[in-house]
Amino acid sequence: MKKVVLAYSGGLDTTYCALYLSKIQNLEVHAVTVNTGGFDEAEIKQIEARAHTLGIASYRSIDVTEAYYDDCVKYLIFGNMLKNGTYPLSVSAERLVQAMTIARAALEIGADAIAHGSTGAGNDQVRFDGVFRTMAPDLEILTPIRDLQLSREAEISFLKEHGVDMNFEKAQYSINKGLWGTSVGGKETLTSGQYLPEAAWPTPITATGTRTIELRFEKGEPVALDGEHFAHPAQLIQALQALAQPYGIGRDIHVGDTIIGIKGRVGFEAAAPLILIKAHHLLEKHTLTKWQIYWKDQLSTWYANWLHEGQLLDPVMRHIEGFLDDAQQTVSGTVSIQLEPKLFTLLGIESPHDLMSNAFGSYGEMNKGWSGDDVKGFTKIFGNQTSIFHQVNKAVQHD
Amino acid sequence: MKKVVLAYSGGLDTTYCALYLSKIQNLEVHAVTVNTGGFDEAEIKQIEARAHTLGIASYRSIDVTEAYYDDCVKYLIFGNMLKNGTYPLSVSAERLVQAMTIARAALEIGADAIAHGSTGAGNDQVRFDGVFRTMAPDLEILTPIRDLQLSREAEISFLKEHGVDMNFEKAQYSINKGLWGTSVGGKETLTSGQYLPEAAWPTPITATGTRTIELRFEKGEPVALDGEHFAHPAQLIQALQALAQPYGIGRDIHVGDTIIGIKGRVGFEAAAPLILIKAHHLLEKHTLTKWQIYWKDQLSTWYANWLHEGQLLDPVMRHIEGFLDDAQQTVSGTVSIQLEPKLFTLLGIESPHDLMSNAFGSYGEMNKGWSGDDVKGFTKIFGNQTSIFHQVNKAVQHD
Amino acid sequence: MKKVVLAYSGGLDTTYCALYLSKIQNLEVHAVTVNTGGFDEAEIKQIEARAHTLGIASYRSIDVTEAYYDDCVKYLIFGNMLKNGTYPLSVSAERLVQAMTIARAALEIGADAIAHGSTGAGNDQVRFDGVFRTMAPDLEILTPIRDLQLSREAEISFLKEHGVDMNFEKAQYSINKGLWGTSVGGKETLTSGQYLPEAAWPTPITATGTRTIELRFEKGEPVALDGEHFAHPAQLIQALQALAQPYGIGRDIHVGDTIIGIKGRVGFEAAAPLILIKAHHLLEKHTLTKWQIYWKDQLSTWYANWLHEGQLLDPVMRHIEGFLDDAQQTVSGTVSIQLEPKLFTLLGIESPHDLMSNAFGSYGEMNKGWSGDDVKGFTKIFGNQTSIFHQVNKAVQHD
Amino acid sequence: MKKVVLAYSGGLDTTYCALYLSKIQNLEVHAVTVNTGGFDEAEIKQIEARAHTLGIASYRSIDVTEAYYDDCVKYLIFGNMLKNGTYPLSVSAERLVQAMTIARAALEIGADAIAHGSTGAGNDQVRFDGVFRTMAPDLEILTPIRDLQLSREAEISFLKEHGVDMNFEKAQYSINKGLWGTSVGGKETLTSGQYLPEAAWPTPITATGTRTIELRFEKGEPVALDGEHFAHPAQLIQALQALAQPYGIGRDIHVGDTIIGIKGRVGFEAAAPLILIKAHHLLEKHTLTKWQIYWKDQLSTWYANWLHEGQLLDPVMRHIEGFLDDAQQTVSGTVSIQLEPKLFTLLGIESPHDLMSNAFGSYGEMNKGWSGDDVKGFTKIFGNQTSIFHQVNKAVQHD
Repeated sequence: MKKVVLAYSGGLDTTYCALYLSKIQNLEVHAVTVNTGGFDEAEIKQIEARAHTLGIASYRSIDVTEAYYDDCVKYLIFGNMLKNGTYPLSVSAERLVQAMTIARAALEIGADAIAHGSTGAGNDQVRFDGVFRTMAPDLEILTPIRDLQLSREAEISFLKEHGVDMNFEKAQYSINKGLWGTSVGGKETLTSGQYLPEAAWPTPITATGTRTIELRFEKGEPVALDGEHFAHPAQLIQALQALAQPYGIGRDIHVGDTIIGIKGRVGFEAAAPLILIKAHHLLEKHTLTKWQIYWKDQLSTWYANWLHEGQLLDPVMRHIEGFLDDAQQTVSGTVSIQLEPKLFTLLGIESPHDLMSNAFGSYGEMNKGWSGDDVKGFTKIFGNQTSIFHQVNKAVQHD
Repeated sequence: MKKVVLAYSGGLDTTYCALYLSKIQNLEVHAVTVNTGGFDEAEIKQIEARAHTLGIASYRSIDVTEAYYDDCVKYLIFGNMLKNGTYPLSVSAERLVQAMTIARAALEIGADAIAHGSTGAGNDQVRFDGVFRTMAPDLEILTPIRDLQLSREAEISFLKEHGVDMNFEKAQYSINKGLWGTSVGGKETLTSGQYLPEAAWPTPITATGTRTIELRFEKGEPVALDGEHFAHPAQLIQALQALAQPYGIGRDIHVGDTIIGIKGRVGFEAAAPLILIKAHHLLEKHTLTKWQIYWKDQLSTWYANWLHEGQLLDPVMRHIEGFLDDAQQTVSGTVSIQLEPKLFTLLGIESPHDLMSNAFGSYGEMNKGWSGDDVKGFTKIFGNQTSIFHQVNKAVQHD
Repeated sequence: MKKVVLAYSGGLDTTYCALYLSKIQNLEVHAVTVNTGGFDEAEIKQIEARAHTLGIASYRSIDVTEAYYDDCVKYLIFGNMLKNGTYPLSVSAERLVQAMTIARAALEIGADAIAHGSTGAGNDQVRFDGVFRTMAPDLEILTPIRDLQLSREAEISFLKEHGVDMNFEKAQYSINKGLWGTSVGGKETLTSGQYLPEAAWPTPITATGTRTIELRFEKGEPVALDGEHFAHPAQLIQALQALAQPYGIGRDIHVGDTIIGIKGRVGFEAAAPLILIKAHHLLEKHTLTKWQIYWKDQLSTWYANWLHEGQLLDPVMRHIEGFLDDAQQTVSGTVSIQLEPKLFTLLGIESPHDLMSNAFGSYGEMNKGWSGDDVKGFTKIFGNQTSIFHQVNKAVQHD
Repeated sequence: MKKVVLAYSGGLDTTYCALYLSKIQNLEVHAVTVNTGGFDEAEIKQIEARAHTLGIASYRSIDVTEAYYDDCVKYLIFGNMLKNGTYPLSVSAERLVQAMTIARAALEIGADAIAHGSTGAGNDQVRFDGVFRTMAPDLEILTPIRDLQLSREAEISFLKEHGVDMNFEKAQYSINKGLWGTSVGGKETLTSGQYLPEAAWPTPITATGTRTIELRFEKGEPVALDGEHFAHPAQLIQALQALAQPYGIGRDIHVGDTIIGIKGRVGFEAAAPLILIKAHHLLEKHTLTKWQIYWKDQLSTWYANWLHEGQLLDPVMRHIEGFLDDAQQTVSGTVSIQLEPKLFTLLGIESPHDLMSNAFGSYGEMNKGWSGDDVKGFTKIFGNQTSIFHQVNKAVQHD
């Protein structure tokens, strides 16, 4: 009997897969849920309970919230990564970490195949297939939903026929929640002109007034919130999210290129990711040299896109992570941030590594390190070539 | 008698220069004010009146607001240029256009020298000197403030001695206003930790509630606001600024690298620039291909920095402008934006060039253009090399 | 009866296609040969004669040698494009221009389908399919060789059965010739360790001794060879190739990434392309500013790869071409080159746009434009931030 | 008595400095020669002997050949760094390592000042000053040659007056030799049109015929030549140079931008650097993924320029070195190279990390990993956006 590991989230598609693969295909199905911070204990219990009704051989839930931070989210912070200047890559990053966890689980138990519930129309299939083909090239990949092209209705009747009892109502907005943000899709995001209504956002705005918080970073990683240190940065992220999301901070719609070449639009709420990235970025503006910033940006923009396109296992990604790690050595300090409904303001920073040190001259004031004459000389030499270019070429025109 | 053209803004430093160069140095001083949209008629009149009390040979004010847009601001919009992700380059761009205008004026009247009032401690001297050495390499550059290293008090006594009557009180915040935003410097911006107080901002927040506006772009240029067309985009910018700045939109503190290598911090309010750039950027996300966006970003980030550093006359800047022009051919459409106190939200766009067209498939839904099998093939080939890399190198490790 | 335009080169695969599509599939086959400079008149005559024996409805040969230069090769020169620092993209560029010509021909005659003879194993199918799907999205694409997966032997028996008489012997080396170089594949290039033997190169080395030639460029384009002007640069390229290839210049093996993710190796001889690119590059080093060179390189490296991968119709490619055009305005002058067996040496250049003008200072000699003090000031300011960085962070360590 | 460490090479300028600083300025001069592989033992002895006649307090020669490789040359190989595609940065790299060694020596002995013999007209002053101001910001920098602006003749009379006996004849070509190549300047390189004559090259061409060599790399570093392992790669470089330079390999003229903005031209002979870089590059084309190569190139091109401009101490350079180190993990194997007079040919490579492995498909041949249908799907999706772009915008035009 062929052993298959199924990436199981408890939703309609993967529920269908579990049942179909075990009951119809007669495979030994091992369902695995990878929790990247989006499920609480009760939800996992519920997912497990249902899984056991689907004829599977085993169920396992793997909590990778901290590993997800260590292997991935950390670099999204180091690189201040916002796709197209906006989106913290909430789903893109999560999917890859899930795929890698599933591939490892499949190799561990000596599976013959891996299954996932992606359709043929989105980014996720590229991410799952891609990771599996690299990490487990000898395993078959099974994708019943993509291959059978079933409608939602057909899936539901099949499940009902087999006595599966779950909530079959379609939510008006599809939500995906994880450590690094929650995505929100619905009828408004299918076209270009409309914004999401208030009711579509998972977290209503309940906080009022302003509140000032302090975030402490050590070598680029968030370690303390308002003076409280956390055992792991993933916990800080969750605490910050709980505190800030009720302000309605970090809501937006991302417009971008899907891996398959069409444009896509998706809403998201991600208060903690946005605050952390912007605060970290500000700290870097104070502590890194111009060219450290330039090259970090170059590499990060590209890394973000390559990750988005599912290519996290390209070895170049490890080199970029090494670069980012290395560039965080002086990114330590505290950032003050004011929260208020729908927005936050970066107030300022404090860091022993701050290059804006009065010891070396304040902008706009004379200082001991250099003179106006030095700058005069600098300007001459700095603009020398452009000046020569124009003089040489003006001479040519006058010939 | 040596003829000198003086860049004259009417402030303390350039007032000192006018008097010093004409009365002490006995030069024939031609004072020129270049208006980049920051002065209204009354202010210019006042500046002119004072100028005539300083012993100068002539005074001229040149309004370059529209030329400033055509030659410079337009490209800041095309490139969605925000230095360090934040600052619309308000002062950097303006200074260069002022320097170029002064250089042309000096060449026109056959001056022997050009004078400017920069100190030896900031960016502006690099911009003025640099432009002058390229556009008018045979003219001497006079910089009394930088050379004499006078204190503010010394300047004031000199002016008083010579009977000059002006407001000598130092403003608590130094303000520089132009078409593309207003900068605000003060004691908080001299160090890293503090934000500007409410009173520091030139435009108080007086607007309340929300308001939705529509901006229409044609080939990347803003042409209409709420359906009203303007004779020139510079006028639209001014109208939008008048409408939006009372919401307190577009306020922030820029932290960045000065040309002379130290870090600097400066506040700014720039509602119109921020709204226009973000709206334009959104329209591009819908109408440009992934690689058009990528290369626009690359070139724009670099262009913004090179402009900031005063190097607008490097011929490479013309090539980049050509690229940006060319990439705007399909960037036409309308963007809806909601304004409210301290923030704005991009609601959506409408454009005939929108690549997110339902005719070619919606994200997450199957379509007629390609099948799940096509994507399966795509994924295999797309990730082929990474998969081979890992297989080859795993084999090596096992040797 | 369905009309199909077939890209017909006269080789085994396209001969099979012509016969198969007309005789077996009963289609109205219009065979079109696109000549990018690789065929002389006699060869075209021979190709046409055979075509008419294959049951086709019409035959047409289109000479695009000059258009190929104007639309494509020109930019390969402007960008000094050598893939991986070595390969002038001989085949990559040619295939795209052929595909575009075929697509236009198909649209002109109102065809229902387009056919090409690519196998499923190489780059060419991606280039043909890609161009057709963009330029003629409504036309079906027929690829009998890829679909039927026939062996060489099966193709030959089919042709023999149908009375086709051609040379069926497999050449030891497969050769592809065009205006911009000749590729050479054979058993040595299938693995990594061996070089091509002397006999594999199409043009034997017959020239001896040294010869100095002069190439004149106007705005980046080659216009004269040893003082002789040509009606079109394509003719100059052919004349230079005839003169220089007998020296054995421009032979090498390219190692690179195919579009489908595996590594490939291919020999080529391309005397004229190599000489032109290196001469043009030298002229640019003298006439362009540092940042013109930097950004030309950035854009060109990427353009070369994107072209190689068949994506010449991405609109970003037009913007890059515009940039390159613009950057050639001062690239005029004469380059002296010494040829000798297997190598050439760039001797020097002469140009009125040469920025290495003695009027503005010679390297290593003092000059009137600036002083040692200016450079001292420059150095201080130029290295200011790095110095501050080290001082700030040394202070932190000592805390 | 003020203590000064003098960077002393034994040439006219530094001999003048030693005498002038000790005898005229009455400083305690500690002369230090930093040998980067350009001097043999006898030459160092001779330099030391003369130094002791100049009134100095101490003399020290520091051989940094191996450290120069470890800290710098290694990265030039890892990055295949050739400035402007041609020049192995022979002098640029050496000067910085010399400056850093001098700075450390000065700090060690508690000097008050550092002196170097650069003029005010070249790149070297920027490199020396820059390194000193960062590594030893509290030490005064003394540059008698730059400050006094002495002619060669004036220097000679001063030395003669003080009884210094050395060869005062000016060589026709100025030569600078180090581990990573020898530069050659002379009257031809002062203008743009002429090549260096045969007699100008330090190493005459004496080798004839062809010879095949094998270079073995381990993680990017050259470790064996024709099977012989070396205790340190610097020794391999010297052995390869001795073997290959008599073929006249690696001669060329570099044309490029000096730090001070003018164009410069300099000849060089660098057989070992050129062979090593090209061999290493070929090995990388076989063993790295496309994007590893792309980003290595990006970072290396920029690193090479920033090093050339004296900014090796910018912290971003450490991050780039880390990236390059990391990317060398699989760059191991053997490269075969054929040498002959004035040229070399890369024959092929052998490596267990070779991604051009027949196990994963040969270019142009069908394979088990994927099918023609997969590539068909790939092509559709890969070109999807460009196709949509053209269809959307064609529709607009037809409106």
